[in-house]
Amino acid sequence: MSSKFQPHGAMRQFFHSRFRFGCFSGSSSVKPVKVGICGLGTVGGGTFNVLQRNAEEIARRAGRGIEVAQIAVRTPNPNCQITGTPTTSDVFAIATNPEIDIVVELIGGYTVARELVLKAIENGKHVVTANKALIAVHGNEIFAKAREKGVIVAFEAAVAGGIPVIKAIREGLSANRINWVAGIINGTGNFILTEMREKGRTFADVLAEAQALGYAEADPTFDVEGIDAAHKLTILASIAFGIPLQFDKAYTEGITKLTTADVNYAEALGYRIKHLGVARSTAQGIELRVHPTLIPADRLIANVNGVMNAVMVNGDASGSTLFYGAGAGMEPTASSVVADLVDVVRAMTSDPENRVPHLAFQPDSLSAHPILPIEACESAYYLRIQAKDHPGVLAQVASILSERGINIESIMQKDVEEHDGLVPMILLTHRVVEQRINDAIQALEALQDVVGPVVRIRVEHLN
Amino acid sequence: MSSKFQPHGAMRQFFHSRFRFGCFSGSSSVKPVKVGICGLGTVGGGTFNVLQRNAEEIARRAGRGIEVAQIAVRTPNPNCQITGTPTTSDVFAIATNPEIDIVVELIGGYTVARELVLKAIENGKHVVTANKALIAVHGNEIFAKAREKGVIVAFEAAVAGGIPVIKAIREGLSANRINWVAGIINGTGNFILTEMREKGRTFADVLAEAQALGYAEADPTFDVEGIDAAHKLTILASIAFGIPLQFDKAYTEGITKLTTADVNYAEALGYRIKHLGVARSTAQGIELRVHPTLIPADRLIANVNGVMNAVMVNGDASGSTLFYGAGAGMEPTASSVVADLVDVVRAMTSDPENRVPHLAFQPDSLSAHPILPIEACESAYYLRIQAKDHPGVLAQVASILSERGINIESIMQKDVEEHDGLVPMILLTHRVVEQRINDAIQALEALQDVVGPVVRIRVEHLN
Repeated sequence: MSSKFQPHGAMRQFFHSRFRFGCFSGSSSVKPVKVGICGLGTVGGGTFNVLQRNAEEIARRAGRGIEVAQIAVRTPNPNCQITGTPTTSDVFAIATNPEIDIVVELIGGYTVARELVLKAIENGKHVVTANKALIAVHGNEIFAKAREKGVIVAFEAAVAGGIPVIKAIREGLSANRINWVAGIINGTGNFILTEMREKGRTFADVLAEAQALGYAEADPTFDVEGIDAAHKLTILASIAFGIPLQFDKAYTEGITKLTTADVNYAEALGYRIKHLGVARSTAQGIELRVHPTLIPADRLIANVNGVMNAVMVNGDASGSTLFYGAGAGMEPTASSVVADLVDVVRAMTSDPENRVPHLAFQPDSLSAHPILPIEACESAYYLRIQAKDHPGVLAQVASILSERGINIESIMQKDVEEHDGLVPMILLTHRVVEQRINDAIQALEALQDVVGPVVRIRVEHLN
Repeated sequence: MSSKFQPHGAMRQFFHSRFRFGCFSGSSSVKPVKVGICGLGTVGGGTFNVLQRNAEEIARRAGRGIEVAQIAVRTPNPNCQITGTPTTSDVFAIATNPEIDIVVELIGGYTVARELVLKAIENGKHVVTANKALIAVHGNEIFAKAREKGVIVAFEAAVAGGIPVIKAIREGLSANRINWVAGIINGTGNFILTEMREKGRTFADVLAEAQALGYAEADPTFDVEGIDAAHKLTILASIAFGIPLQFDKAYTEGITKLTTADVNYAEALGYRIKHLGVARSTAQGIELRVHPTLIPADRLIANVNGVMNAVMVNGDASGSTLFYGAGAGMEPTASSVVADLVDVVRAMTSDPENRVPHLAFQPDSLSAHPILPIEACESAYYLRIQAKDHPGVLAQVASILSERGINIESIMQKDVEEHDGLVPMILLTHRVVEQRINDAIQALEALQDVVGPVVRIRVEHLN
């Protein structure tokens, strides 16, 4: 029986003649690349651990070892056993250490991180970062400097954690004119929405639990207001459409005002509500927007639950693709940081002109196609109107929409709600420019029989 | 209003100082790379069309144009307007054309394709191919030759059409020890299973329709017997685990014997049946198997329907990821062929030693970890036993399983079927080595009260 588990015959000969058995030995003569890790928090600790644990596996791929030569750390990480690696409390010591080839920036934030990365570049070092805020806000400056110095700045871990979606768009789909990108790119937000739907809990209730569990920050603004997602979407849009990073033009709407009522109505209509980042290329310009979104329940992305992330990319040749995985966490994010290191190890000896451009497109051929203001974006809409139970309300509503060229796809009118005697009227519209919906909502709210604000949630079909 | 659509203020200045406006112009001084396309069938036609239509977009990314210098074609493709590009009826003319840098092999099959690719390599040309059979069966030979000559052989389009999954595993997940890969990697098979489940149709009925619609070949063996999927899985396993290509060791079981009864029972138990390729790394060796598989219905991959493909990859750092998209078709496959061309254009000027290795791992550090025979593979099982309606049958069944160390997860006993008076008994087992299930099935079939063969379908939970 045991002979079954051995290569035999032709295959054995094949092994013997062409491959060395067992462990990595092939390129042991090549010196390892020296890496400095700045920041030993969640991602830094994960990166250190993965580099240690999978050192052999990584070297078998990269053709050389990747050695952590120095770590800048202020607070020791209990999940990380550092023995033998020199540490410093000064991140700038890494950026200037002449021994170090690649600086890994994992301190987060804008200010020190920006200085650190620019200093590392200035010193001719390649940079790997997981810092979406830094790239979204200061990326244009950083990439310009990196080109000047002929170094690489890699940032796969900045978007969607362990999912190699930057690589997928920038290289895997490079044949395409990308039509749109849509993603669930904030795990905390998706966890909250999943709990609201599955357990009927309120936003505030789930948020409090997420904070207690450590999924959400003490200040959850970045997550629940969509700022974190907008950082990531800004990056995705740039590499998809070949435009400079323009975070300040992204439209951002959070999930804090979502009610279980809307979650349930959406469900009844065959939809799920997700906090979606959408970037779409149109003849007029680029839509760049983060907001709660109804998605048909039978779409794969509508079934991405809990803290998981997924990004859909629609290209003119590829059609729709989806990339799914853990969007955050110690080791998933480290997986992308280390993959970037392997990429840099391969590319660092190549002609800078022939490398994959930072933003996917050659820097001298980025497009000036403008980012559209939200009023000029187009989508379908879910509207919830609280109306008094009078005859003729529906006719008034329908006429307001029709006058503005807004076509209704379906209407669901619920029974009178006992506590307030109002009738919730739920409408789904066809696709239309947002300005028209704004006008319509204003007119609807002015109706005598309509009580309180009209709830508006965008709808995307993502075919 | 129109001023909203123009970059203004700081951003305008930014554009003017750093970027040229509008169309690609930056690298027009660099000569285009010259490509020869061999075969102008579905994928060849798609590749030609995408290269023409997206020429500007592609050059903006690649930094140089990609020009089709010659096409080898026997039968004209009505979907493809060739004007001005020289054609030949001799594929070998492409492999020897001194003008051509990259040969695109899209003729399919093993024999001529192998000769063509080897000839192209011999002549120092890089190769891009969509030919899974060629790579799975002759890849080791082809890659060895390519290394000798310092050329690249790229094959993203060989697996899962427009999904850049080769790149994802080989580069995007390079930090990981990959635990397993599982994929729906044959669109025809998935279309048939989807129709069987959604519409209660029989295998034969759906196959006939698929053939009429052109989804399935006149000889559907490769698709429905799992050979096409095994070719692709062989490639995925090599790049995931760093082992030579060993197609002859793959276990392959088709979907031809699946009944709607089993599809429905699976559904009742909360599962979907998919034709899955599974490659798993274990301490004993590598599992490499294609077969119908029950997957819990709430898994994303269980909801991949119709002709779509999806590949899950589980890494020790990344956790489970999933890559989804069109697995075949003119333009999705062309998307991957052209992405490979862009990659080759970038890498062709680099040091061959620093390129991404063909099989993800350095050729001198491939592993001799053996492929396990199917009897040594481990999975959970779905068993359907047709029993006479006698008391004590369940006890006999349970005792046969228990004696072989097979734990039962659940049992579903249906009512007596009217037409034959038999009771279908459906069992789900815990994970166990296949040899034990084989022994158990033999013993079960020998029972007096068991009628006909026991149906066995593997179950994977894919967490």
